[in-house]
Amino acid sequence: MLNLIEKHRCFKGYQEIYSHDSLSNKCDMQFALYTPDKKENIPVVFFLSGITCTEQNFIQKSGYQKFASENEIAVVVPDTSPRGDNIPDDDNYKLGKGAGFYLNASEKNWSKNYNMYDYICYELVKIINENFNFSKTQIGIFGHSMGGGGAIQCALKNTNIFKSVSAFSPICSFNKSVFAKEARERYLGNNIDKINLYDPIFLIENYNNLDQIKIDVGLNDEFLDDLFINDFEKVCEKQNQKLIIKKHENYDHGYYFIQSFIKDHLNFHSLALSK
Amino acid sequence: MLNLIEKHRCFKGYQEIYSHDSLSNKCDMQFALYTPDKKENIPVVFFLSGITCTEQNFIQKSGYQKFASENEIAVVVPDTSPRGDNIPDDDNYKLGKGAGFYLNASEKNWSKNYNMYDYICYELVKIINENFNFSKTQIGIFGHSMGGGGAIQCALKNTNIFKSVSAFSPICSFNKSVFAKEARERYLGNNIDKINLYDPIFLIENYNNLDQIKIDVGLNDEFLDDLFINDFEKVCEKQNQKLIIKKHENYDHGYYFIQSFIKDHLNFHSLALSK
Repeated sequence: MLNLIEKHRCFKGYQEIYSHDSLSNKCDMQFALYTPDKKENIPVVFFLSGITCTEQNFIQKSGYQKFASENEIAVVVPDTSPRGDNIPDDDNYKLGKGAGFYLNASEKNWSKNYNMYDYICYELVKIINENFNFSKTQIGIFGHSMGGGGAIQCALKNTNIFKSVSAFSPICSFNKSVFAKEARERYLGNNIDKINLYDPIFLIENYNNLDQIKIDVGLNDEFLDDLFINDFEKVCEKQNQKLIIKKHENYDHGYYFIQSFIKDHLNFHSLALSK
Repeated sequence: MLNLIEKHRCFKGYQEIYSHDSLSNKCDMQFALYTPDKKENIPVVFFLSGITCTEQNFIQKSGYQKFASENEIAVVVPDTSPRGDNIPDDDNYKLGKGAGFYLNASEKNWSKNYNMYDYICYELVKIINENFNFSKTQIGIFGHSMGGGGAIQCALKNTNIFKSVSAFSPICSFNKSVFAKEARERYLGNNIDKINLYDPIFLIENYNNLDQIKIDVGLNDEFLDDLFINDFEKVCEKQNQKLIIKKHENYDHGYYFIQSFIKDHLNFHSLALSK
Protein backbone atom coordinates (compact mmCIF):
# COMPACT_ATOMS: atom_id res chain seq x y z
CA MET A 1 0.00 0.00 0.00
CA LEU A 2 1.28 3.46 -0.93
CA ASN A 3 1.06 6.40 1.45
CA LEU A 4 1.17 9.86 -0.08
CA ILE A 5 3.30 12.03 2.22
CA GLU A 6 4.07 15.11 0.07
CA LYS A 7 2.32 16.67 -2.92
CA HIS A 8 3.33 19.93 -4.61
CA ARG A 9 2.13 21.55 -7.81
CA CYS A 10 5.22 21.97 -10.03
CA PHE A 11 5.09 23.15 -13.63
CA LYS A 12 2.12 21.38 -15.28
CA GLY A 13 2.06 18.41 -12.95
CA TYR A 14 2.70 17.30 -9.38
CA GLN A 15 5.81 16.39 -7.42
CA GLU A 16 4.80 13.73 -4.93
CA ILE A 17 6.52 11.60 -2.28
CA TYR A 18 5.20 8.17 -1.35
CA SER A 19 6.17 5.72 1.37
CA HIS A 20 5.54 1.99 1.34
CA ASP A 21 6.63 -1.24 2.97
CA SER A 22 9.41 -2.83 0.92
CA LEU A 23 9.54 -6.61 0.62
CA SER A 24 13.04 -6.57 -0.90
CA ASN A 25 14.59 -4.39 1.81
CA LYS A 26 12.31 -5.34 4.72
CA CYS A 27 11.75 -1.76 5.77
CA ASP A 28 9.70 1.30 4.97
CA MET A 29 10.95 3.02 1.80
CA GLN A 30 10.17 6.39 0.22
CA PHE A 31 10.22 7.38 -3.42
CA ALA A 32 9.46 10.58 -5.30
CA LEU A 33 7.18 10.68 -8.31
CA TYR A 34 6.56 13.45 -10.80
CA THR A 35 3.36 13.11 -12.81
CA PRO A 36 2.52 15.53 -15.60
CA ASP A 37 -1.16 16.47 -15.87
CA LYS A 38 -1.51 14.10 -18.78
CA LYS A 39 -0.71 10.90 -16.94
CA GLU A 40 -2.40 8.06 -18.83
CA ASN A 41 -0.17 5.74 -20.80
CA ILE A 42 2.85 8.07 -20.74
CA PRO A 43 6.47 6.89 -20.55
CA VAL A 44 8.02 6.53 -17.10
CA VAL A 45 11.69 6.99 -16.27
CA PHE A 46 13.52 5.94 -13.08
CA PHE A 47 16.33 8.15 -11.77
CA LEU A 48 18.93 6.56 -9.48
CA SER A 49 20.80 9.03 -7.25
CA GLY A 50 24.37 9.04 -5.99
CA ILE A 51 25.93 8.28 -2.61
CA THR A 52 24.53 10.19 0.42
CA CYS A 53 21.34 11.11 -1.46
CA THR A 54 17.77 10.31 -0.50
CA GLU A 55 14.79 10.63 -2.85
CA GLN A 56 14.92 14.39 -2.14
CA ASN A 57 18.22 15.57 -3.66
CA PHE A 58 17.45 15.09 -7.33
CA ILE A 59 13.91 16.45 -7.07
CA GLN A 60 15.06 19.61 -5.28
CA LYS A 61 18.27 20.33 -7.16
CA SER A 62 18.16 19.13 -10.76
CA GLY A 63 15.31 21.19 -12.19
CA TYR A 64 14.08 18.10 -14.08
CA GLN A 65 10.39 18.82 -13.52
CA LYS A 66 10.23 21.47 -16.26
CA PHE A 67 11.32 18.95 -18.87
CA ALA A 68 9.31 16.03 -17.47
CA SER A 69 6.30 18.35 -17.70
CA GLU A 70 7.09 19.53 -21.23
CA ASN A 71 7.81 16.01 -22.50
CA GLU A 72 4.88 14.46 -20.57
CA ILE A 73 7.03 11.83 -18.89
CA ALA A 74 6.55 10.46 -15.36
CA VAL A 75 9.74 10.29 -13.30
CA VAL A 76 10.29 7.97 -10.32
CA VAL A 77 13.15 8.83 -7.93
CA PRO A 78 13.88 6.11 -5.35
CA ASP A 79 15.95 6.42 -2.22
CA THR A 80 19.54 5.07 -2.39
CA SER A 81 19.36 2.46 0.40
CA PRO A 82 17.11 0.91 3.00
CA ARG A 83 16.27 3.25 5.89
CA GLY A 84 15.23 3.07 9.53
CA ASP A 85 16.56 2.64 13.04
CA ASN A 86 16.92 -1.14 12.66
CA ILE A 87 18.84 -1.03 9.39
CA PRO A 88 22.60 -1.82 9.53
CA ASP A 89 24.79 1.18 8.84
CA ASP A 90 28.44 2.22 8.88
CA ASP A 91 30.37 5.36 9.78
CA ASN A 92 31.92 5.39 6.29
CA TYR A 93 29.52 7.25 3.99
CA LYS A 94 30.43 4.89 1.14
CA LEU A 95 28.70 2.03 2.93
CA GLY A 96 25.32 1.51 4.55
CA LYS A 97 22.54 4.07 4.49
CA GLY A 98 22.76 6.35 1.47
CA ALA A 99 25.11 3.93 -0.31
CA GLY A 100 23.10 0.88 -1.38
CA PHE A 101 24.93 0.68 -4.75
CA TYR A 102 21.86 -0.84 -6.45
CA LEU A 103 22.99 -4.40 -5.69
CA ASN A 104 21.77 -7.38 -3.67
CA ALA A 105 24.13 -7.87 -0.73
CA SER A 106 25.24 -11.43 -0.07
CA GLU A 107 27.09 -10.99 3.18
CA LYS A 108 25.91 -11.41 6.76
CA ASN A 109 24.60 -8.22 8.39
CA TRP A 110 23.73 -6.66 4.99
CA SER A 111 21.90 -9.32 2.98
CA LYS A 112 18.58 -9.02 4.80
CA ASN A 113 18.02 -5.34 3.96
CA TYR A 114 20.46 -4.24 1.28
CA ASN A 115 18.70 -5.48 -1.84
CA MET A 116 18.39 -2.29 -3.84
CA TYR A 117 18.84 -4.18 -7.14
CA ASP A 118 15.72 -6.26 -6.60
CA TYR A 119 13.96 -3.27 -5.10
CA ILE A 120 14.49 -1.06 -8.17
CA CYS A 121 14.22 -3.53 -11.03
CA TYR A 122 11.40 -5.70 -9.75
CA GLU A 123 9.59 -4.39 -6.68
CA LEU A 124 9.43 -0.69 -7.52
CA VAL A 125 8.79 -1.18 -11.24
CA LYS A 126 5.89 -3.48 -10.25
CA ILE A 127 4.55 -1.01 -7.70
CA ILE A 128 4.54 1.78 -10.29
CA ASN A 129 2.89 -0.46 -12.87
CA GLU A 130 0.18 -1.57 -10.46
CA ASN A 131 -0.61 1.80 -8.91
CA PHE A 132 -0.44 4.21 -11.84
CA ASN A 133 -1.74 4.15 -15.39
CA PHE A 134 1.57 4.94 -17.03
CA SER A 135 2.81 2.89 -19.96
CA LYS A 136 3.77 -0.65 -18.90
CA THR A 137 6.27 -0.96 -21.73
CA GLN A 138 7.83 2.48 -22.31
CA ILE A 139 10.13 2.54 -19.27
CA GLY A 140 13.58 4.14 -19.05
CA ILE A 141 16.28 4.48 -16.40
CA PHE A 142 18.99 7.03 -15.69
CA GLY A 143 21.13 8.12 -12.80
CA HIS A 144 24.13 9.97 -11.40
CA SER A 145 27.49 8.70 -10.15
CA MET A 146 26.73 5.54 -8.11
CA GLY A 147 23.26 5.76 -9.64
CA GLY A 148 24.63 6.29 -13.15
CA GLY A 149 26.50 3.02 -12.92
CA GLY A 150 23.40 1.56 -11.28
CA ALA A 151 21.19 2.63 -14.18
CA ILE A 152 23.55 1.10 -16.75
CA GLN A 153 23.92 -2.24 -14.95
CA CYS A 154 20.18 -2.49 -14.29
CA ALA A 155 19.40 -1.72 -17.94
CA LEU A 156 21.94 -4.18 -19.37
CA LYS A 157 20.44 -7.09 -17.41
CA ASN A 158 16.80 -6.08 -17.90
CA THR A 159 16.28 -5.13 -21.52
CA ASN A 160 12.75 -6.49 -21.20
CA ILE A 161 12.01 -3.76 -18.62
CA PHE A 162 14.15 -0.71 -19.48
CA LYS A 163 14.02 0.57 -23.07
CA SER A 164 16.28 3.61 -22.64
CA VAL A 165 19.27 4.39 -20.45
CA SER A 166 21.44 7.39 -19.73
CA ALA A 167 23.80 8.60 -17.02
CA PHE A 168 25.52 11.62 -15.54
CA SER A 169 29.11 10.94 -14.40
CA PRO A 170 28.54 7.20 -13.87
CA ILE A 171 30.85 4.89 -11.94
CA CYS A 172 31.56 2.62 -14.90
CA SER A 173 33.78 0.13 -13.10
CA PHE A 174 32.17 -1.17 -9.94
CA ASN A 175 35.08 -3.62 -9.89
CA LYS A 176 37.85 -1.01 -9.88
CA SER A 177 36.32 2.15 -8.39
CA VAL A 178 37.95 3.18 -5.11
CA PHE A 179 34.58 4.64 -4.19
CA ALA A 180 33.04 1.16 -4.28
CA LYS A 181 35.83 -0.61 -2.37
CA GLU A 182 33.89 -0.97 0.88
CA ALA A 183 30.73 -1.97 -1.00
CA ARG A 184 32.58 -4.79 -2.80
CA GLU A 185 34.14 -6.02 0.43
CA ARG A 186 31.32 -5.71 2.88
CA TYR A 187 28.20 -6.27 0.74
CA LEU A 188 29.66 -8.92 -1.58
CA GLY A 189 32.64 -10.40 0.32
CA ASN A 190 34.91 -9.41 -2.58
CA ASN A 191 33.42 -12.24 -4.66
CA ILE A 192 34.39 -11.37 -8.24
CA ASP A 193 31.43 -13.20 -9.81
CA LYS A 194 29.03 -11.18 -7.73
CA ILE A 195 30.95 -7.94 -8.31
CA ASN A 196 30.88 -8.47 -12.07
CA LEU A 197 27.09 -8.64 -12.01
CA TYR A 198 27.01 -4.96 -11.05
CA ASP A 199 29.95 -3.82 -13.17
CA PRO A 200 28.94 -1.87 -16.31
CA ILE A 201 32.23 -2.66 -18.10
CA PHE A 202 31.94 -6.41 -17.44
CA LEU A 203 28.29 -6.40 -18.48
CA ILE A 204 28.97 -4.59 -21.77
CA GLU A 205 31.50 -7.32 -22.56
CA ASN A 206 29.27 -10.21 -21.59
CA TYR A 207 25.64 -9.21 -22.12
CA ASN A 208 23.59 -8.24 -25.15
CA ASN A 209 23.94 -4.70 -26.43
CA LEU A 210 21.46 -1.97 -25.64
CA ASP A 211 20.00 0.19 -28.37
CA GLN A 212 22.15 3.13 -27.16
CA ILE A 213 23.59 4.61 -23.97
CA LYS A 214 23.86 8.36 -23.36
CA ILE A 215 26.49 9.69 -20.94
CA ASP A 216 27.41 13.23 -19.90
CA VAL A 217 30.46 13.90 -17.75
CA GLY A 218 32.26 17.02 -16.58
CA LEU A 219 36.00 17.28 -17.21
CA ASN A 220 36.45 19.15 -13.93
CA ASP A 221 34.77 16.27 -12.09
CA GLU A 222 36.66 15.75 -8.83
CA PHE A 223 36.08 11.98 -9.12
CA LEU A 224 36.79 11.71 -12.85
CA ASP A 225 39.63 9.19 -12.56
CA ASP A 226 37.50 6.90 -10.42
CA LEU A 227 34.63 6.77 -12.93
CA PHE A 228 36.60 4.78 -15.56
CA ILE A 229 34.79 6.59 -18.36
CA ASN A 230 37.59 6.01 -20.87
CA ASP A 231 37.63 2.26 -20.17
CA PHE A 232 33.88 2.21 -20.64
CA GLU A 233 34.20 4.01 -23.97
CA LYS A 234 36.80 1.47 -25.13
CA VAL A 235 34.71 -1.55 -24.22
CA CYS A 236 31.62 -0.05 -25.88
CA GLU A 237 33.63 0.52 -29.05
CA LYS A 238 35.01 -3.03 -28.95
CA GLN A 239 31.55 -4.51 -28.45
CA ASN A 240 29.84 -2.23 -30.96
CA GLN A 241 27.68 -0.79 -28.21
CA LYS A 242 26.35 2.58 -29.38
CA LEU A 243 27.47 5.21 -26.89
CA ILE A 244 26.58 8.90 -27.08
CA ILE A 245 29.08 10.50 -24.75
CA LYS A 246 29.65 14.19 -24.15
CA LYS A 247 32.57 15.48 -22.08
CA HIS A 248 32.05 18.99 -20.80
CA GLU A 249 34.93 21.35 -20.06
CA ASN A 250 34.86 22.97 -16.58
CA TYR A 251 31.78 21.19 -15.18
CA ASP A 252 32.20 19.24 -11.94
CA HIS A 253 30.45 16.25 -10.35
CA GLY A 254 27.55 18.00 -8.62
CA TYR A 255 24.00 19.11 -9.24
CA TYR A 256 25.03 22.35 -10.96
CA PHE A 257 26.38 20.09 -13.69
CA ILE A 258 23.30 17.85 -13.71
CA GLN A 259 21.02 20.89 -13.85
CA SER A 260 22.92 22.21 -16.87
CA PHE A 261 22.22 19.12 -18.98
CA ILE A 262 19.07 17.63 -17.46
CA LYS A 263 16.95 18.86 -20.38
CA ASP A 264 18.99 16.77 -22.81
CA HIS A 265 18.39 13.61 -20.76
CA LEU A 266 14.64 14.07 -20.50
CA ASN A 267 14.50 14.79 -24.23
CA PHE A 268 16.63 11.71 -24.92
CA HIS A 269 14.33 9.40 -22.98
CA SER A 270 11.23 11.01 -24.41
CA LEU A 271 12.44 10.40 -27.95
CA ALA A 272 13.70 6.86 -27.25
CA LEU A 273 10.45 5.90 -25.52
CA SER A 274 8.23 7.35 -28.24
CA LYS A 275 9.40 4.70 -30.68
CA MET B 1 37.94 41.88 0.66
CA LEU B 2 36.02 39.07 -1.01
CA ASN B 3 36.95 35.43 -0.49
CA LEU B 4 35.80 32.98 -3.13
CA ILE B 5 34.68 29.84 -1.30
CA GLU B 6 32.72 27.91 -3.96
CA LYS B 7 32.78 27.96 -7.76
CA HIS B 8 30.81 25.65 -10.05
CA ARG B 9 30.28 25.71 -13.78
CA CYS B 10 26.50 25.94 -14.35
CA PHE B 11 24.90 26.43 -17.76
CA LYS B 12 27.00 29.03 -19.61
CA GLY B 13 28.41 30.71 -16.52
CA TYR B 14 29.54 30.12 -12.95
CA GLN B 15 27.74 29.77 -9.65
CA GLU B 16 30.01 31.19 -6.99
CA ILE B 17 29.88 31.79 -3.24
CA TYR B 18 31.83 34.62 -1.61
CA SER B 19 32.43 35.56 2.00
CA HIS B 20 33.40 38.98 3.29
CA ASP B 21 33.48 41.05 6.43
CA SER B 22 30.28 43.07 6.73
CA LEU B 23 30.44 46.59 8.17
CA SER B 24 26.65 46.83 8.50
CA ASN B 25 26.23 43.57 10.38
CA LYS B 26 29.64 43.41 12.08
CA CYS B 27 30.21 39.81 11.14
CA ASP B 28 31.37 37.62 8.28
CA MET B 29 28.65 37.29 5.62
CA GLN B 30 28.29 35.03 2.57
CA PHE B 31 26.54 35.70 -0.68
CA ALA B 32 26.02 33.71 -3.87
CA LEU B 33 26.72 35.14 -7.30
CA TYR B 34 25.87 33.77 -10.73
CA THR B 35 27.88 35.27 -13.55
CA PRO B 36 27.13 34.41 -17.19
CA ASP B 37 30.19 34.03 -19.43
CA LYS B 38 29.46 37.45 -20.85
CA LYS B 39 29.90 39.46 -17.69
CA GLU B 40 30.89 42.97 -18.72
CA ASN B 41 28.28 45.66 -18.28
CA ILE B 42 25.37 43.23 -17.91
CA PRO B 43 22.34 43.84 -15.64
CA VAL B 44 22.54 42.50 -12.09
CA VAL B 45 19.58 41.36 -10.00
CA PHE B 46 19.48 40.76 -6.24
CA PHE B 47 17.33 37.91 -4.90
CA LEU B 48 16.19 38.10 -1.25
CA SER B 49 15.25 34.72 0.26
CA GLY B 50 12.62 33.80 2.83
CA ILE B 51 12.81 32.87 6.52
CA THR B 52 15.18 30.00 7.46
CA CYS B 53 17.10 30.33 4.18
CA THR B 54 20.79 31.01 3.70
CA GLU B 55 22.36 32.05 0.40
CA GLN B 56 22.17 28.35 -0.60
CA ASN B 57 18.44 27.59 -0.84
CA PHE B 58 17.55 29.67 -3.87
CA ILE B 59 20.66 28.72 -5.81
CA GLN B 60 20.11 25.00 -5.24
CA LYS B 61 16.35 24.79 -5.63
CA SER B 62 14.97 27.43 -7.98
CA GLY B 63 16.64 26.49 -11.26
CA TYR B 64 17.23 30.20 -11.97
CA GLN B 65 20.69 29.71 -13.46
CA LYS B 66 19.35 28.51 -16.83
CA PHE B 67 17.49 31.79 -17.32
CA ALA B 68 20.19 34.01 -15.86
CA SER B 69 22.53 32.34 -18.37
CA GLU B 70 20.13 32.72 -21.31
CA ASN B 71 19.33 36.34 -20.46
CA GLU B 72 22.93 37.20 -19.59
CA ILE B 73 22.05 38.63 -16.19
CA ALA B 74 24.19 38.40 -13.04
CA VAL B 75 22.27 37.34 -9.91
CA VAL B 76 23.35 38.08 -6.33
CA VAL B 77 21.77 36.00 -3.56
CA PRO B 78 22.56 37.26 -0.04
CA ASP B 79 22.07 35.42 3.21
CA THR B 80 18.96 36.35 5.24
CA SER B 81 20.62 37.52 8.47
CA PRO B 82 23.95 38.03 10.17
CA ARG B 83 25.72 34.76 11.09
CA GLY B 84 28.26 33.49 13.56
CA ASP B 85 28.68 32.24 17.10
CA ASN B 86 28.61 35.75 18.59
CA ILE B 87 25.44 36.86 16.80
CA PRO B 88 22.25 37.11 18.92
CA ASP B 89 19.66 34.48 18.07
CA ASP B 90 16.32 33.14 19.28
CA ASP B 91 14.66 29.72 19.48
CA ASN B 92 11.74 31.04 17.42
CA TYR B 93 12.67 30.61 13.75
CA LYS B 94 10.85 33.84 12.92
CA LEU B 95 13.49 35.82 14.77
CA GLY B 96 17.26 35.96 14.79
CA LYS B 97 19.43 33.96 12.41
CA GLY B 98 17.66 33.19 9.15
CA ALA B 99 15.04 35.88 9.83
CA GLY B 100 16.66 39.29 9.39
CA PHE B 101 13.58 40.73 7.65
CA TYR B 102 15.73 43.14 5.60
CA LEU B 103 15.44 45.89 8.20
CA ASN B 104 17.73 47.82 10.53
CA ALA B 105 16.99 46.77 14.10
CA SER B 106 16.66 49.58 16.63
CA GLU B 107 16.41 47.58 19.83
CA LYS B 108 19.09 46.55 22.28
CA ASN B 109 20.64 43.15 21.64
CA TRP B 110 19.74 43.28 17.92
CA SER B 111 20.77 46.73 16.66
CA LYS B 112 24.48 46.01 16.49
CA ASN B 113 24.23 43.13 14.00
CA TYR B 114 20.75 43.04 12.51
CA ASN B 115 21.08 45.68 9.80
CA MET B 116 20.12 43.72 6.73
CA TYR B 117 18.47 46.75 5.13
CA ASP B 118 21.70 48.72 5.07
CA TYR B 119 23.60 45.58 4.18
CA ILE B 120 21.53 44.84 1.06
CA CYS B 121 20.78 48.32 -0.25
CA TYR B 122 24.09 50.00 0.43
CA GLU B 123 26.91 47.73 1.49
CA LEU B 124 26.30 44.78 -0.83
CA VAL B 125 25.28 46.87 -3.83
CA LYS B 126 28.53 48.81 -3.35
CA ILE B 127 30.60 45.65 -2.99
CA ILE B 128 29.16 44.26 -6.22
CA ASN B 129 29.73 47.54 -8.04
CA GLU B 130 33.31 47.78 -6.87
CA ASN B 131 34.35 44.17 -7.41
CA PHE B 132 32.65 43.26 -10.70
CA ASN B 133 32.24 44.93 -14.04
CA PHE B 134 28.47 44.59 -14.21
CA SER B 135 26.30 47.56 -15.09
CA LYS B 136 26.29 50.18 -12.32
CA THR B 137 22.84 51.40 -13.32
CA GLN B 138 20.82 48.41 -14.53
CA ILE B 139 20.11 46.81 -11.16
CA GLY B 140 16.97 44.91 -10.14
CA ILE B 141 15.70 43.18 -7.01
CA PHE B 142 13.33 40.32 -6.32
CA GLY B 143 12.60 37.88 -3.57
CA HIS B 144 10.36 35.29 -1.93
CA SER B 145 8.07 35.55 1.09
CA MET B 146 9.97 37.60 3.72
CA GLY B 147 12.35 38.42 0.87
CA GLY B 148 9.51 39.28 -1.51
CA GLY B 149 8.31 41.94 0.90
CA GLY B 150 11.96 42.88 1.43
CA ALA B 151 12.51 43.39 -2.29
CA ILE B 152 9.44 45.61 -2.60
CA GLN B 153 10.27 47.81 0.41
CA CYS B 154 13.92 48.13 -0.64
CA ALA B 155 12.91 49.10 -4.19
CA LEU B 156 10.28 51.65 -3.13
CA LYS B 157 12.78 53.57 -1.02
CA ASN B 158 15.70 53.27 -3.45
CA THR B 159 14.46 54.02 -6.93
CA ASN B 160 17.88 55.47 -7.67
CA ILE B 161 19.40 51.99 -7.14
CA PHE B 162 16.80 49.41 -8.16
CA LYS B 163 15.20 49.79 -11.58
CA SER B 164 13.04 46.63 -11.56
CA VAL B 165 11.27 44.68 -8.82
CA SER B 166 9.33 41.44 -8.59
CA ALA B 167 8.31 38.96 -5.91
CA PHE B 168 7.09 35.43 -5.29
CA SER B 169 4.48 35.20 -2.51
CA PRO B 170 5.64 38.37 -0.73
CA ILE B 171 4.68 39.38 2.80
CA CYS B 172 2.97 42.61 1.75
CA SER B 173 2.07 43.85 5.21
CA PHE B 174 5.02 43.83 7.54
CA ASN B 175 2.72 45.70 9.91
CA LYS B 176 -0.03 43.05 10.04
CA SER B 177 1.65 39.76 9.18
CA VAL B 178 1.56 37.26 12.05
CA PHE B 179 4.81 35.91 10.66
CA ALA B 180 6.52 39.25 11.39
CA LYS B 181 5.07 39.71 14.90
CA GLU B 182 8.26 38.86 16.75
CA ALA B 183 10.36 40.90 14.29
CA ARG B 184 8.22 43.99 14.89
CA GLU B 185 8.39 43.55 18.65
CA ARG B 186 11.96 42.52 19.18
CA TYR B 187 13.83 44.28 16.36
CA LEU B 188 11.78 47.49 16.33
CA GLY B 189 10.14 47.70 19.77
CA ASN B 190 6.72 47.80 18.06
CA ASN B 191 7.44 51.39 16.98
CA ILE B 192 4.90 52.05 14.21
CA ASP B 193 7.02 54.65 12.44
CA LYS B 194 9.89 52.21 12.17
CA ILE B 195 7.56 49.35 11.18
CA ASN B 196 6.03 51.44 8.41
CA LEU B 197 9.44 51.98 6.85
CA TYR B 198 9.54 48.26 6.01
CA ASP B 199 5.87 47.81 5.15
CA PRO B 200 5.15 47.53 1.39
CA ILE B 201 1.53 48.66 1.78
CA PHE B 202 2.47 51.78 3.76
CA LEU B 203 5.26 52.59 1.33
CA ILE B 204 3.01 52.29 -1.74
CA GLU B 205 0.69 54.82 -0.08
CA ASN B 206 3.44 57.22 0.93
CA TYR B 207 6.30 56.94 -1.53
CA ASN B 208 6.70 57.58 -5.23
CA ASN B 209 5.45 54.91 -7.60
CA LEU B 210 7.69 52.37 -9.25
CA ASP B 211 7.55 51.74 -12.96
CA GLN B 212 5.87 48.37 -12.32
CA ILE B 213 5.83 45.53 -9.80
CA LYS B 214 5.46 41.88 -10.79
CA ILE B 215 4.06 39.37 -8.28
CA ASP B 216 3.32 35.66 -8.57
CA VAL B 217 1.50 33.82 -5.82
CA GLY B 218 0.06 30.31 -5.43
CA LEU B 219 -3.56 29.97 -4.37
CA ASN B 220 -2.72 26.83 -2.39
CA ASP B 221 -0.10 28.81 -0.45
CA GLU B 222 -0.27 27.68 3.17
CA PHE B 223 0.51 31.27 4.30
CA LEU B 224 -1.74 33.03 1.79
CA ASP B 225 -3.87 34.87 4.36
CA ASP B 226 -0.77 36.22 6.08
CA LEU B 227 0.69 37.71 2.89
CA PHE B 228 -2.03 40.42 2.54
CA ILE B 229 -1.85 40.18 -1.25
CA ASN B 230 -5.39 41.48 -1.73
CA ASP B 231 -4.72 44.54 0.43
CA PHE B 232 -1.60 45.18 -1.59
CA GLU B 233 -3.56 44.95 -4.84
CA LYS B 234 -6.10 47.45 -3.52
CA VAL B 235 -3.51 50.00 -2.44
CA CYS B 236 -1.67 49.67 -5.75
CA GLU B 237 -4.91 50.30 -7.60
CA LYS B 238 -5.72 53.30 -5.41
CA GLN B 239 -2.25 54.79 -5.91
CA ASN B 240 -2.10 53.99 -9.63
CA GLN B 241 0.92 51.76 -9.01
CA LYS B 242 1.22 49.37 -11.97
CA LEU B 243 1.04 45.81 -10.62
CA ILE B 244 1.35 42.68 -12.75
CA ILE B 245 -0.01 39.99 -10.48
CA LYS B 246 -0.65 36.36 -11.33
CA LYS B 247 -2.47 34.02 -8.96
CA HIS B 248 -1.82 30.38 -9.68
CA GLU B 249 -4.30 27.63 -8.83
CA ASN B 250 -2.88 24.70 -6.81
CA TYR B 251 0.65 26.02 -6.31
CA ASP B 252 1.93 26.35 -2.74
CA HIS B 253 4.52 28.55 -0.98
CA GLY B 254 7.67 26.53 -1.66
CA TYR B 255 10.44 26.17 -4.19
CA TYR B 256 8.41 23.89 -6.49
CA PHE B 257 6.25 26.95 -7.07
CA ILE B 258 9.22 29.30 -7.48
CA GLN B 259 10.87 26.87 -9.91
CA SER B 260 7.70 26.77 -12.02
CA PHE B 261 7.72 30.54 -12.65
CA ILE B 262 11.35 31.55 -12.21
CA LYS B 263 11.82 31.91 -15.97
CA ASP B 264 9.13 34.61 -16.09
CA HIS B 265 10.91 36.62 -13.39
CA LEU B 266 14.33 36.51 -15.06
CA ASN B 267 12.72 37.46 -18.36
CA PHE B 268 10.84 40.30 -16.64
CA HIS B 269 14.01 41.79 -15.14
CA SER B 270 15.96 41.27 -18.34
CA LEU B 271 13.38 43.21 -20.33
CA ALA B 272 12.96 45.95 -17.71
CA LEU B 273 16.71 46.42 -17.37
CA SER B 274 17.33 46.51 -21.11
CA LYS B 275 15.46 49.81 -21.39
